[in-house]
Amino acid sequence: MARSTHIPFTQVTITGGLWQQLMTTNRQVTMPIQHQRCRETGQLTAWRGTGDSHIFWDSDVAKWIEAAAYCIASHSDPKLEAQVDQVITDMAACQDDDGYLNSHFARRPRSERWSNLRDGHELYCAGHLMEAAVAWYHATGKREMLDILCRYADHIDHTFGPKRTQCHGYPGHQEIEIGLVRLYEATGTERYLRLAQYFVDERGRDRRGHYFDHEARARGENPADYHHKTYEYNQSHLPVREQTDVVGHAVRALYLYAGMADVAAHTGDASLLTACKKLWGNLTERRLAIIGGVGSRALNEGMAGDYDLPDAGGYNETCAAVALVFWAHRMFLATDDAQYLDVLEQSLFNNCISGVDHSGEQFFYGNPLAAEPGFDGNDVYNSPGHNYRRVPWFGCSCCPPNIARLIAQMPGYCYAQRGRTVSTCVYADCDAQLTIGGKAVALTQRTDYPWDGRVDLRVTDNQAGTWTLALRIPAWCQGATITVNGTAASAAITRGFARIKRDWQVGDRVVLKLPMPVRQVHAHPRARQIAGQLALCRGPVVYCCEETDNGRDLSNIRISATTRFRCKPGPSELGAIPSLHATVQAEDLSTWRGSLYRDTPVPLRKRPIVAIPYFRWGNRAPGAMRVFLQRG
Amino acid sequence: MARSTHIPFTQVTITGGLWQQLMTTNRQVTMPIQHQRCRETGQLTAWRGTGDSHIFWDSDVAKWIEAAAYCIASHSDPKLEAQVDQVITDMAACQDDDGYLNSHFARRPRSERWSNLRDGHELYCAGHLMEAAVAWYHATGKREMLDILCRYADHIDHTFGPKRTQCHGYPGHQEIEIGLVRLYEATGTERYLRLAQYFVDERGRDRRGHYFDHEARARGENPADYHHKTYEYNQSHLPVREQTDVVGHAVRALYLYAGMADVAAHTGDASLLTACKKLWGNLTERRLAIIGGVGSRALNEGMAGDYDLPDAGGYNETCAAVALVFWAHRMFLATDDAQYLDVLEQSLFNNCISGVDHSGEQFFYGNPLAAEPGFDGNDVYNSPGHNYRRVPWFGCSCCPPNIARLIAQMPGYCYAQRGRTVSTCVYADCDAQLTIGGKAVALTQRTDYPWDGRVDLRVTDNQAGTWTLALRIPAWCQGATITVNGTAASAAITRGFARIKRDWQVGDRVVLKLPMPVRQVHAHPRARQIAGQLALCRGPVVYCCEETDNGRDLSNIRISATTRFRCKPGPSELGAIPSLHATVQAEDLSTWRGSLYRDTPVPLRKRPIVAIPYFRWGNRAPGAMRVFLQRG
Repeated sequence: MARSTHIPFTQVTITGGLWQQLMTTNRQVTMPIQHQRCRETGQLTAWRGTGDSHIFWDSDVAKWIEAAAYCIASHSDPKLEAQVDQVITDMAACQDDDGYLNSHFARRPRSERWSNLRDGHELYCAGHLMEAAVAWYHATGKREMLDILCRYADHIDHTFGPKRTQCHGYPGHQEIEIGLVRLYEATGTERYLRLAQYFVDERGRDRRGHYFDHEARARGENPADYHHKTYEYNQSHLPVREQTDVVGHAVRALYLYAGMADVAAHTGDASLLTACKKLWGNLTERRLAIIGGVGSRALNEGMAGDYDLPDAGGYNETCAAVALVFWAHRMFLATDDAQYLDVLEQSLFNNCISGVDHSGEQFFYGNPLAAEPGFDGNDVYNSPGHNYRRVPWFGCSCCPPNIARLIAQMPGYCYAQRGRTVSTCVYADCDAQLTIGGKAVALTQRTDYPWDGRVDLRVTDNQAGTWTLALRIPAWCQGATITVNGTAASAAITRGFARIKRDWQVGDRVVLKLPMPVRQVHAHPRARQIAGQLALCRGPVVYCCEETDNGRDLSNIRISATTRFRCKPGPSELGAIPSLHATVQAEDLSTWRGSLYRDTPVPLRKRPIVAIPYFRWGNRAPGAMRVFLQRG
Repeated sequence: MARSTHIPFTQVTITGGLWQQLMTTNRQVTMPIQHQRCRETGQLTAWRGTGDSHIFWDSDVAKWIEAAAYCIASHSDPKLEAQVDQVITDMAACQDDDGYLNSHFARRPRSERWSNLRDGHELYCAGHLMEAAVAWYHATGKREMLDILCRYADHIDHTFGPKRTQCHGYPGHQEIEIGLVRLYEATGTERYLRLAQYFVDERGRDRRGHYFDHEARARGENPADYHHKTYEYNQSHLPVREQTDVVGHAVRALYLYAGMADVAAHTGDASLLTACKKLWGNLTERRLAIIGGVGSRALNEGMAGDYDLPDAGGYNETCAAVALVFWAHRMFLATDDAQYLDVLEQSLFNNCISGVDHSGEQFFYGNPLAAEPGFDGNDVYNSPGHNYRRVPWFGCSCCPPNIARLIAQMPGYCYAQRGRTVSTCVYADCDAQLTIGGKAVALTQRTDYPWDGRVDLRVTDNQAGTWTLALRIPAWCQGATITVNGTAASAAITRGFARIKRDWQVGDRVVLKLPMPVRQVHAHPRARQIAGQLALCRGPVVYCCEETDNGRDLSNIRISATTRFRCKPGPSELGAIPSLHATVQAEDLSTWRGSLYRDTPVPLRKRPIVAIPYFRWGNRAPGAMRVFLQRG
């Protein structure tokens, strides 16, 4: 299957704008803090066998190593490099002679290994370590961790597979599918791709009873005692090609789909891509929070059903948004269809980067669409959405290193290429070195995207002659204009791209203007929790109203078609962001003294409102927040 | 303190209308079913010492006995009477020589008695038994159960109190306060009133550390391990006179407040009534669901905070609504202010009688304001509001006998009297025998209330000469008219009553007309889950739209000021109820194919809707339901 490839992080340098700010904070603040917190929890030294180790700890450290790799690729950092090398040394010492590697199970009887794929997270941790090993290898050229993970992958490949002597299991928490494909891409060892394919194909096939039932009985447990009750939770209820609805635990689901897209891309298996497209349709037409969030409910950290999109209770785990970026990116690369990049951006600029605060020190696990003010000290009831605050770390701290590795790899989302076509994916101020037909091409991109829709591209080197520049026109954009060297270019938009084929000369300048009015976005009327309400969006960024700017009363704000917004810089404590200002109608609360319900229409009065980008909420005094506002 | 008294169930006979239907079903269907289910669970025979007994079982049987008493008062039923007598015989045999009576603790070591007031429910069960004993005595004249409960009350009075040798505790689940006052009213034994007063006064006083902390440590437990975490849960966080917000477990809270009102009424303690009024203000201005429901959250079966009024997740336990009727009734009797009757009706005609289905066979524990359609078999997530159905019984089955005893005592809510003033409270087709100044008075009331606002009152006997008829004008009503013998009467409305003083003659006829247009009710804009939406009400009855009448799409219905409703009989399978019919605007779902969000205003189309009384929802095919609808 012909497919696009992304221009990797090693070939793109971010040179300004939001991404540079996020990446700098990530590198300078978040990475050292995560190192310190992993040391404090014991996660960092768990490979040494001292202290305890939890079943998912290896994965957290793996994601931090992966983030470190991307950081080092752009900014040499001997201290960070030495920290990672130390972990790799510990990891090597922990690895078994047969290749097995897991700091938790290293402390347990050998018989427990692979005995509980459903809950044990061994394959999940292995996958994250593989991703980290490949990134570390690409960033530093050092092979040690890659070799460790190849040995582990060999062991897993020996253990799992279709042969009678092999285990016919698959992960209860998907991720290894992605890791194995990464390892295959880095090493060319086709066995790794085949093993990823095996895990995808075997999942939920249930030839002679469900695999997780078998292994539960082998442990002496009743399969019916499964904590999460149904195999929808881990997407093993059906063979993957028969799955049509996004169900269960959101991160598990999206890592699986990303793995399916990976396997499809490398094997040419159209049936897998077809399954992915069906699942994509279900997600984006029925189950995607406006911030690009997946998994509406805390109970299963996942899906409840079609059109279940709660605002205050919305879970929208940071990890699930990161996973959606991964899946969307793979879907785009497989199809060249920019619809996938629209969703990638929706998640990236909203749910994903909401996961870390402006200072880079505190994190969100869930990302609700509304928060309510504190409840008079009655803390018996305290669930997501209530007194919601960012915190320094979590008991299960998957999200902080996940957002760190995503931000660090942002350069990889700027461009993609298929043959002699170079596509812009997510606009950002950056310089890129490309190779077209084996010849060097260099591009600069100057923009303040996502705050401003003007994108200024220059060809700074072109040894490749004629090639096509495909400019992404986001789905939210109406009236985009393009000039080439000052002359209007009329390029038909196909699959979300305006394509300009040209014998590019050094100095050629392309200016793209994407108008960015404030958009009032309606949700599907079946989304009962937000039906009839409006969200404010500008470009790819979703906005919200916070108590600290607006007072506690956000539920009486009414947005109408005639509401005029002014876009102004600030608040300054949140960095260089624009906020939206307007005067709106609001129900007059002073008329409600002494009553909770009334028959008569409610008098309205004017009030000012300020909306800030959603991803910057929860950085100031805790309080109420709303994305969806009343229709006026 | 001068106060009104209600005209008891023994003096009022329901002769038609909704109440007669509900009482007949309750007597003929619900009572035998509850007897059978209590027999099947072992609750009915738990006094015999066979099988197990749960800590709250005695209370369920007590409420069934109380309901049986009211049923027998209106309709002789030797079989039911024999069933109750058998239970009383078992109860007598179970009672300890010292008067102690509890089927659960009878099976446990003696040392466990009164060792865990916080969680053990002994005083709660005792209170319900006292209420039942008094009702049974009034209905049948039989003293046996009353004597049993007096002995038990004597034992409790000996055990608890201010003396050094006594236990300074109070119930973790309130109810005994009400029971003791009932016992005092029936027997005149003032010690019972003083003990109720002690429990009220001692609660949350925390002179030398919290009582529940003391008893936890005495059991060898850490008080911090308390499952419900804070003493707001059982309203022992502060002395009752310092409590201003309705917090914690709703049923506990409302039974306490009813007990406070009882003690205030009999002792003249104005400070208790003042505390009740503050709590009432907090409840009705900030925390009361439109159906008259209290306790928005399942987590604590109680309160979350001001303006927390979720629709789909709303808990609104049937027992809490029943308890609100009790409290509201006492507040009215203490103040003669009809505002309390407005809330009593709001709860009675909506949340309370929603607790039992039309057939009388199945029950609701929680009563949400919205239900969502089933979720594609993904039953990992399944919480109240989802696939919501009535069921035959509950593991903790407090609600079914509570609604049974409430329906059976409905006649007691028709009239109240203070001196020579007779007040109508809840209108119903009934005959009443009263005594004014020691002289007989008889009234008939003919009405189809709450379906029709015409109330036809006739004086059928009057030996008492001049007295005042106080006709309640509900707060929801505008433009009430009154005629006396066909002539318009102009009576000023004070505290919710139009008062007519007259030397009544036999045959005098008063016709009250309460206009009942469909009202579109707005919630306070701070009630964020329902802000900007509308509920349909007619008279005291809240309406809802169900999937079975309207299809699954209820979230796109828009109600506007110009919407015209027709009131028609039916659906026939729900009894003689009127439903509301209208043609409304609705977002056109056909324009949403393939999208979940959109920037452009949504085209509207006309659609018909049908709304039925809320209390009759969930009687047909399970599916979506909404009380609050979009504003058009």
